[in-house]
Parts: sequence; structure tokens; C-alpha cells
Amino acid sequence: MRGMTLPNRIMVPAMVTHLCGEDGVVTEDVIERYARYARGGAGLVVVEAMAVHHVKSGPLLRISDDRFVPGLRELARRVHDAGEAKVVPQIIHFLKVARSGWRQTVDMLAPEEIERIIEQFGDAAARARAAGFDGAELHSAHAYTLSSFLSRTNPRTDAYGGQTLEGRLRLIGRVMESVRRKAGADFPIGIRLNGEEFIKNGYTVQESRLIALRLAELGAAYLSLSAGGKFEDAVHEPGQVLFPYSGYSGDRAMPGDWLPRGLHVPLAAEIKAFLVSCGHATPVAIAGKLSDPADAERVVAEGKADMVAIARGLLADPDWPDKVRRGALERIVQCDYCNVCKALDGTHRPVICTLWPQGALQAPAADDAPLPWAGALEASVQAGRVALKWPKVPEAGHYDVYRADDLGNAGLVDAVKVNHWIDATALGGRRYRYYVRARTAGGRASPPSNTVFLDLPAPGVLAAS
Amino acid sequence: MRGMTLPNRIMVPAMVTHLCGEDGVVTEDVIERYARYARGGAGLVVVEAMAVHHVKSGPLLRISDDRFVPGLRELARRVHDAGEAKVVPQIIHFLKVARSGWRQTVDMLAPEEIERIIEQFGDAAARARAAGFDGAELHSAHAYTLSSFLSRTNPRTDAYGGQTLEGRLRLIGRVMESVRRKAGADFPIGIRLNGEEFIKNGYTVQESRLIALRLAELGAAYLSLSAGGKFEDAVHEPGQVLFPYSGYSGDRAMPGDWLPRGLHVPLAAEIKAFLVSCGHATPVAIAGKLSDPADAERVVAEGKADMVAIARGLLADPDWPDKVRRGALERIVQCDYCNVCKALDGTHRPVICTLWPQGALQAPAADDAPLPWAGALEASVQAGRVALKWPKVPEAGHYDVYRADDLGNAGLVDAVKVNHWIDATALGGRRYRYYVRARTAGGRASPPSNTVFLDLPAPGVLAAS
Repeated sequence: MRGMTLPNRIMVPAMVTHLCGEDGVVTEDVIERYARYARGGAGLVVVEAMAVHHVKSGPLLRISDDRFVPGLRELARRVHDAGEAKVVPQIIHFLKVARSGWRQTVDMLAPEEIERIIEQFGDAAARARAAGFDGAELHSAHAYTLSSFLSRTNPRTDAYGGQTLEGRLRLIGRVMESVRRKAGADFPIGIRLNGEEFIKNGYTVQESRLIALRLAELGAAYLSLSAGGKFEDAVHEPGQVLFPYSGYSGDRAMPGDWLPRGLHVPLAAEIKAFLVSCGHATPVAIAGKLSDPADAERVVAEGKADMVAIARGLLADPDWPDKVRRGALERIVQCDYCNVCKALDGTHRPVICTLWPQGALQAPAADDAPLPWAGALEASVQAGRVALKWPKVPEAGHYDVYRADDLGNAGLVDAVKVNHWIDATALGGRRYRYYVRARTAGGRASPPSNTVFLDLPAPGVLAAS
Repeated sequence: MRGMTLPNRIMVPAMVTHLCGEDGVVTEDVIERYARYARGGAGLVVVEAMAVHHVKSGPLLRISDDRFVPGLRELARRVHDAGEAKVVPQIIHFLKVARSGWRQTVDMLAPEEIERIIEQFGDAAARARAAGFDGAELHSAHAYTLSSFLSRTNPRTDAYGGQTLEGRLRLIGRVMESVRRKAGADFPIGIRLNGEEFIKNGYTVQESRLIALRLAELGAAYLSLSAGGKFEDAVHEPGQVLFPYSGYSGDRAMPGDWLPRGLHVPLAAEIKAFLVSCGHATPVAIAGKLSDPADAERVVAEGKADMVAIARGLLADPDWPDKVRRGALERIVQCDYCNVCKALDGTHRPVICTLWPQGALQAPAADDAPLPWAGALEASVQAGRVALKWPKVPEAGHYDVYRADDLGNAGLVDAVKVNHWIDATALGGRRYRYYVRARTAGGRASPPSNTVFLDLPAPGVLAAS
């Protein structure tokens, strides 16, 4: 990837940790979070978005001044020491938001402010290189400045908008030029962008493939595709600043358990094929519920993307790559897309996985302790819902719940810390099969419990039809 | 389809016309609109949503009382006389909306109100049969009562919600039972539903395929898939009642020119395959930018759906089916997805197509008048946009604009009544080719104009990379 070679195609995309202080300086907790991914075997670790500009915005990393370089250098060094992963910081510019719900929009920026942003990105990339990172990634996705310029809703009427695609592309072009000039044309620059905006009047793959083509022409080392995560449909909570993942487009950016797995793969496939047809080999990464190793393998094997970006799945289990490599799939602590991590992000608290041990700031080490199963899983129907309960396993950190129906669907449906579970999405008139497994925080699973079969009664109206 | 046989697989899905008065009675204009579709060769004409309940709500049809039957009978008779099409009314219940932005939600309904809705649907279906329709269609999509019960956001805590899929399915089950009891089990009942809600916390194909399965089990004659169109993300205009197609989910229900063609076909394919795997042959119709005959053919040929539902495409040209049958594809007046029809719907004005002659309430007859082309199409670059202009053709109703680029994209990009056009989505550094054709309102096209080639200059930053 323009001089950067990865040991494998597994990317940790940028995830805010809120593990640093308000000063934006790298902490031991931050370092440990990212070194952990490298130890677990990831191929590319993208460090959470760090601001290129001088800004007070809570516990977020910054790269806006040379004084941040020593901490960043230590971070890069420790990630390199921990494994074979390459590591790049995601660099970001964002506009102002207020607790009143007000937010600054791109049409409020004066020409000299745009010039300053262009310089700030260049300076930040140069600092990333000075700190020993393998490259840098421009955050041009979701609700942030670069993405808002690319947006089909960009309201500017000058050369940086003007209701033309070229106008919307102008800022990212100038930023890339600045970055390459200041950090060196041989420093690999990846770009994260939305494959689709998922907001009213937002762009779709009809345009994102053209945007991707331009980014390839600009010399992007890789394109990392995300989707949604916009301010335009964010839900304002009184007294809180807008959280851009709180609306429908936020559902798309961090899809919960009711959205399909691999939901954005078709976007990647279309963009990748388009780039290839235009003669560009720029690698494409895709995110979005790809934590099932079979799904991830299929995406890469079928050429729909070159890399899989797994955020929540690797937060739950940073050893995912290593376990996949060893064929120890049953030891993976599987994300159940409960989105507690998202809620923590939204309220500026340290982002952890709820499947980790209570109070832990980092994922536990993989363990090999045997875990027994004893006692019986029981199921009953209560008010049309299936209720499961089972005896506690003392050493268990949580329990994985598996379900199969007579419609061809089978697999993990939830992960819970309590010893009971309710199925609210079962269909009357169908046969369901359930079992659970206890699991340690390190991923060691008990044997499966007994399997319970259950015929859910059909509603009365079905008998009549 | 449970006793109803269509002459072909082309469906006119329900489109509000606003051609009746506030009394909800069928008018000559309404009859002519639907007879026109039958004359044009459609296989199934679904008459716009008519209320099953007593309600004042502007110029919308009603089927809430026996006094509406004579008008509906005349409508059914005239559509039957006009062609081979089968004709069914879409029957709807909707909740109250106020100009303040307030709207009634399903959790405000008392149990006895739910019982009344169930009876009203049954009575309406019986009236549809008495009026001579070939069946009826339940409107269980978009922002309306049945859909709101099915929604993943249904807030009821009783047996008609209760955060369970079965709870959300209860009302549609009871409505089907009522309809079949009152109209006769042999009266074909189609159901329109959302394949995906496209709102925050809304359902996806993970659940819509289960919903579709239940509707098949309930004996639906066909399932007509739409998407979005919800109140939850509608944009409130001060002093206006909420229009459920004004938010992002509205973009999805009536996709404009920047959304991909056939965008909901993957939903249909997944649902159809799931139904087949469960042993149900229930026909599935799919809507969403399918007015290109090649797209429509492919959907059916590949088995992704059994019928194509073409709304705006058949509004623009009701003779679309006949022209396709005759192989006269170049005579089709092609919808350019400008959504003037949608804007007219949103402001309760008679819904027409802007490609029709000025002032016309109905599509003009197909004509065979020759149409010449004279003079030269010219192109220039102005402020990064491509500007086209050409001489007026006196007999032309409008002009189709075609574009091809060096990236493999070619086709109709717009239809305009004026003799100039601006391309705002062209990418710098690429070669574009344009031509236009004049067209009469009846669909007769001139020969293509001369083709202009244009190399759009690349932005300066590209030279540097």
C-alpha cells in the first residue's frame, strides 16, 4: 500500500477510547489498548481520531502541536514492539458543537479558515511521520469536516461546494496535496470515507464510487469504507452536544444486533469493482458487522474488498486474528452487537466491552482454564416469548446463547452476563432449538449445555387461514 | 394469485392522485387515470389508498361506507373495459395528524379502537368485492396504522406490541381474519409492506422476511414490497401536517435521481428466496426505480421478484407496458425521477407528471407524429460545470439528455422542458459525451442530436500526485 506492507488483511478501524485526559496526551491506558491489538495479531492498527487543530473537546487525542509527538512516538513504538502490525493515526478536523444543539456547519467557514485546515492536516501528517507511525489516515467519513465537504448536502456556494461534485471534492484534494507536501510523498496516507451517507439528500454509491476514484487518483494508500454517522439526523438530548451516531445514520455506522451482518459489503464490492475497472489497485477496506470469521474470509476471498475492518469484534476480543490463525474459532469472544461501547462513546466515558470482566479497562488475556458445564438449560413460553434459564457456572464471565429454527437460521444470538434470557423475536408456529455455553472472559468456553426444543404455539388466526 | 390471474407481471402500485374531492367520491378524472393504465397494458392496477374509516383528510378516496360503492363500481368496470388488467383498491387506515406537527401514535389506541379498525378493514374488503374489484390490497407499508404496528418501533406494551415480533404481527393477523370472513376466503387479498423501514431502530430484512412468511401463511394473494416512508423521520414544515415522505425514509420510498436504480431489488430477492425455502409460492412484487425495461426484465428473469411495481415510470408513460411489448422502447417517455409528482402529493395538489403537456391532468395519447432535429448541441465548461444548450424544436414537449463518460457509464441523465442543461456531477480529468433528443408528450422522439465530446479539466492538485 504505497510502501506499507501489512502482515494480513485484518484492520482495527479507528475507535474512540476516551482513555486519555482532557489534555489530549497519550496515556499508558491508550498505549496498552493499541499494543493489545498488535499482540492479538491484527494487520493494521488505526489509532483513534486525533485532532489536527487546537480544540478543547473532552478526552480525545490530539496531534495539533509538536508537544504531542513524544507521547505519540511512545505509542507507535510500543505497538510496533507488540507484534507485526503496522500502525497509523487517524487524523481529524471537526467543527464546533454546543450543548444547546447548535453546531457549526461548513458554510460558516471563511476562506482563511479553510486554508488553515489544509495546513493543519499537513502539519499533523508530518508529526505522524516524525512520531514513527507507518502512515496516517485522513478521517473523511461520518460527521466531520472533510466528510461534510464531500457530502451531497454541502451548502457552500463557492468553489468548495457550489452544488457540484468537483466543488465538494476540492477540500480533500487540497488536503492531500498539503499532507504529501509536508509529510513527504512517500508517506502512506489512507482515507476513510462513507460509501453511503444514509441521510436525506445524502450521497449513494452512485457518487461514492466517483469520490473513491478521485481519492485513488490523489494517491491514497488505501480507502477505508464506512457509512452514515452524520449530524444531520442526530437526536439532540437536552444539555448534551449532538452525538452523530444517535440517528438512523448512526444505526448504519455502528449497526446493532437487528441489522444484517456484513451489511455494507455490497457498497465495497461496487466501489472496488469500479476502481479496478478504472485501472486503480488502491486497496479497499470495509467495516460493518464482519466479526464472523467466515464472513470476513468470504469478503476477501471473493474480492469484494481487500481488507476487513473489524471494530467492535476486535474490541470484544483483540486476539480474534490470532485465534483465527490458530483455527481456535470456538475460543473467540464474539461481539453480540449490544452497543454498550457505543453508548459509552456517546457519553464520553472510557470505552470498554461489556463482555470483559467487571471494571476492566482492557481485554483480558486469552486463557486456557477448563470450564465445566453442569445442570440443565430450561425453556418455557411466557406471554408469547420464549424464556430460558440455566444454572450459574461459577467461573463464567458470560454466557453465549445459540438458537436454531426450522427456517434455516442458526447461530449465536446473544451474549449475557446473567443466567436467563428472553427471546422476543421468535415466530409462532415454528420449532426452535436453544443451547448456551458458559465462557470465561479470556474466551475459554464450556461444552454446550443440553439443547432444548420448543414448539412455539401458532396464533389463533393462522388456524383459520 | 389465489384465483386472480394477471396478463403480465407489470403492476401499477398505489399512487395518490388527489383527483377526487374532499368527499372521497370517485370522479371522472380518477376513473380516466386508472383506465389509462389498463389501456396502456399494465397487468395489475392498484387503485390509490382509500380510507376504511370515517375521516376528513382532503382529496383522498374512501371506502368507509356503502355510499362509496357506486363510484367504485364504475371505476372497476371502466378499468376492466379498458384492457386486460386486473384491478384492486388499496385499503388503508391511518391515524390523526395535526398541523402543529402532533400525530397520533399506535400506543394511543384503546382496545376497542383496535377492534373497530379490524372490523373496518373487513367491511372495506367486502365493499371492494361488491364493487366488482378483483381483490383488495391492505396498505401495511410506510407510515400508516398497519405498518406502525408491524414496526420495530411499535411502543405498545400489550399483546399488540410488547416488544415481541408476535405482538407486532397480531393486528395484521386479525385484520386478515376479518377481511377473509367478511369478503370471503376466495377473495384475493394482497398486502403491501416495507422490506426495510430505514429509520432509527427500524426493522431490516432480518425481520421483514419473517413478517413476509407470516403474511404468506395468512393467505396473502401477493406481497408488494416497498420501503421507508415513515413519520418518525419526517420533516415538519410549520403549519403543515407531517408528510411521511419528507425525511430520509421518504427518499427511500420515492427515490430521486441520485439513488441507484432498482435499489430495493436485493430486499425482494432475499425475501423471495426465504419464502421459497419455507415452501411458499406467494408472488412478490418489488418497487423502486425499475422503469428501465432491461432492469425490470432482469428482476423477473432472475427470479428476484415475480412482479415489477412501476409507479412514477407508468405515471410518466402509461403506455410503457404496451411499448415494451411492441419493442418500441425508444418511444417510452422515461421518468427522470425529478419527483415533482412527490412534491404535488406532499402539498395535496393533483398529481401529474411534469413531462406531460402543460395543464394536462392525464398522460397524453401515444403519437406517431414525426419529430425533426435541426441545429447543433453545444457544450462549454462554466465554473467547473458542463453547460449544454441547443436550439428549440417547436413541436417538442421536452428533451431527453444523454451522457456517457470514459468510466463505463452511459444513459439518460435528465429530461427537461427548457433547451439548456447543466451537469453538476461530472468529474474533472474525464471525457464526457453528450447528446439530446427532442420528444413529443406522446413519446415520439427526434433523431439524436449531434454528439459533443468534452474533456473536463482536472483540478490542479491532481497534477501534483
